[in-house]
Amino acid sequence: MASFVTHLRCARCDARFDHRQLQHLCTCGSPLLVEYDLEAIAAAVDRPTVGGRAPTMWRYREFLPVEDPANIVSLGEGFTPMLSIGDALKELGFTDLWLKDDGLNPTGSFKARGASCGISRAKELGVRSVALPTAGNAGGAWACYAAAAGLTCHVAMPADAPRINHLECRLYGADLQVVDGLISDAGKLIAQGVAAHGWYDAATLKEPYRIEGKKTLGLEIAEQLDWRLPDAIVYPAGGGVGVIGIWRALVQLKAIGWVQGELPRLIVVQAEGCAPLVKAFTEGRTESEFWQGAQTFSSGLRVPKALGDFLVLQAVRATGGTAVAVSDEATGEMMRRIAGRTGICAAPEGAATLAGIVALAARGDLAYHERIVLINTGSGLKYAEALAQVTPP
Amino acid sequence: MASFVTHLRCARCDARFDHRQLQHLCTCGSPLLVEYDLEAIAAAVDRPTVGGRAPTMWRYREFLPVEDPANIVSLGEGFTPMLSIGDALKELGFTDLWLKDDGLNPTGSFKARGASCGISRAKELGVRSVALPTAGNAGGAWACYAAAAGLTCHVAMPADAPRINHLECRLYGADLQVVDGLISDAGKLIAQGVAAHGWYDAATLKEPYRIEGKKTLGLEIAEQLDWRLPDAIVYPAGGGVGVIGIWRALVQLKAIGWVQGELPRLIVVQAEGCAPLVKAFTEGRTESEFWQGAQTFSSGLRVPKALGDFLVLQAVRATGGTAVAVSDEATGEMMRRIAGRTGICAAPEGAATLAGIVALAARGDLAYHERIVLINTGSGLKYAEALAQVTPP
Repeated sequence: MASFVTHLRCARCDARFDHRQLQHLCTCGSPLLVEYDLEAIAAAVDRPTVGGRAPTMWRYREFLPVEDPANIVSLGEGFTPMLSIGDALKELGFTDLWLKDDGLNPTGSFKARGASCGISRAKELGVRSVALPTAGNAGGAWACYAAAAGLTCHVAMPADAPRINHLECRLYGADLQVVDGLISDAGKLIAQGVAAHGWYDAATLKEPYRIEGKKTLGLEIAEQLDWRLPDAIVYPAGGGVGVIGIWRALVQLKAIGWVQGELPRLIVVQAEGCAPLVKAFTEGRTESEFWQGAQTFSSGLRVPKALGDFLVLQAVRATGGTAVAVSDEATGEMMRRIAGRTGICAAPEGAATLAGIVALAARGDLAYHERIVLINTGSGLKYAEALAQVTPP
Repeated sequence: MASFVTHLRCARCDARFDHRQLQHLCTCGSPLLVEYDLEAIAAAVDRPTVGGRAPTMWRYREFLPVEDPANIVSLGEGFTPMLSIGDALKELGFTDLWLKDDGLNPTGSFKARGASCGISRAKELGVRSVALPTAGNAGGAWACYAAAAGLTCHVAMPADAPRINHLECRLYGADLQVVDGLISDAGKLIAQGVAAHGWYDAATLKEPYRIEGKKTLGLEIAEQLDWRLPDAIVYPAGGGVGVIGIWRALVQLKAIGWVQGELPRLIVVQAEGCAPLVKAFTEGRTESEFWQGAQTFSSGLRVPKALGDFLVLQAVRATGGTAVAVSDEATGEMMRRIAGRTGICAAPEGAATLAGIVALAARGDLAYHERIVLINTGSGLKYAEALAQVTPP
């Protein structure tokens, strides 16, 4: 058995690394991306074959890095619903609006995709202990899949992350360190543990495989829209791995001829209280600056500086996309509106994407008739604190 | 367009009712069941056709009561993962153990099935306002689907239900009444509202269609095990609608020849602090008595007396099943064990089924080699209060 992976490539300097060994960052300090033999994938599988497989993200296994299927750690993640919500929200004016509901994943968030792929490959390569800092949901997801794989998991998380994120990590038996600070402070703690104990560093983009799981979001969007690409995909960016993954997915699909035409514009939404990518995009920079005093109830967006910021900005610019910041007030209003009109209990991050397109359409950066896909990255049920703020008593 | 429904039938006295009109209980006070033209279903659809449809419970639409597909209110509910967990939990001795993870539904629980079906049919019949008492999750689910359908929803819920159940109802814009008591007290309040305002009474089994949604659990179990029935299905019973629905599903599948052989034994698990069905089963009664002082952190099992108790007991006895009560301590231990070994964050009710089969196997009522399917009715992420109790700080 083998995967279709050919090698790992530095996203910045193109240096080449062997995927059969454990790898983290490039010697230049940048993330490594997984490269595949796309011709071989195209020869091995076609769209109807994928379409006949079980409804999880592993239906796209040729696009994923695991060599032996026995190493796949799966709890049914992926192939989440793609819901048409334009009619229900017609007062907003969008006529072809969709929401990809990634709250219906194990652990209630899209982080399950990255964790399922990352843990599967870590297990395959002989890892015994993984470690990561998290704003909340990634910690729960990696604790979950580590438990399923029989690995130990070290998580550092801000004290003010949603309480359920603390509880789920403890339930899974993870070693949870609570940090009085942000994910950046949690990252320093994990880096110390990695150096001291040799833990496998699973921080965002510090290992190459989490992003491959996120890539399946893009593959699913294409398949669920009958392999016709939408005009825009709107993503709430904390670390931004999802948008990089979606971009790579669509590029790969186009390369093998499964989709045609222009790639959708990739649009990034952040919170006004922590918008380093929006600031960098607006200022025409290729990297972001550390955002001081990050604050938003969209806890997954409290990421002051993302390691993959330059890749997110590349993805947005290469596709003609844009970036926008929204207030927590606007996000809260959209949480109520989405729930009240569509029945979807979106995470604040997911609701922020709707607030984002309302702002973008108002300023002419989106047309109301375009086919737009919002990514709801998690279930609002994990955000009791935010729900208490936005629901009338 | 039409459904394959022929009529409604009283589960106790067999009186016949017209399904094209709004119906609640029989004049004898018992629930109505939906009857279908099974021969016509068998002529209209086959297993491969169902197998090629989208992965939601509506893939079984011929077995469901909605006439016009335009009335279906769907958020991607059903076709939840069927996970093999025997290896991960091999210290318990079961060699062919499965868990149906219904936590991966919209609203994080199996209640989405009943609500999707019940609301769709209510909408089809012109209902504008639904009302129900709930232990928690059903309230969230009906508030959700009512919102999606544009109906108003009145919910009465115990004050000590998980806080997230209160919050989700409010988020969906439901009229939430908090009751200092149990679901039975909430039921009295709703009955008053129904009498005073003409709300559509959607209390458990007081309308005929919620159970049809639950039926899809049984249909999925059969399909996901390649149409070979397991030896036992283990269900945590509050109101018990799920077990009645599963029973009816399997009887219908057998009638049309999609499955063969003995039906699985249907096994009911309750909490020691509220076990009216177990008591009735053990004492050989055909109905249960109101359980005084119901108490358990498995909030969905705090149902002192179920309207469909006689049907649950029929289902268990007809299939050679049994009933068992477990302590909250055993359930908490199983929540930790399931999470730590398999990565599944089970609701207390779901974890109780594992505690239940451990007890049953110990007393010889189950064999370790049998193919056993546990129903995890919800996501443990909705039970922050219970998680805080069972996880070490």
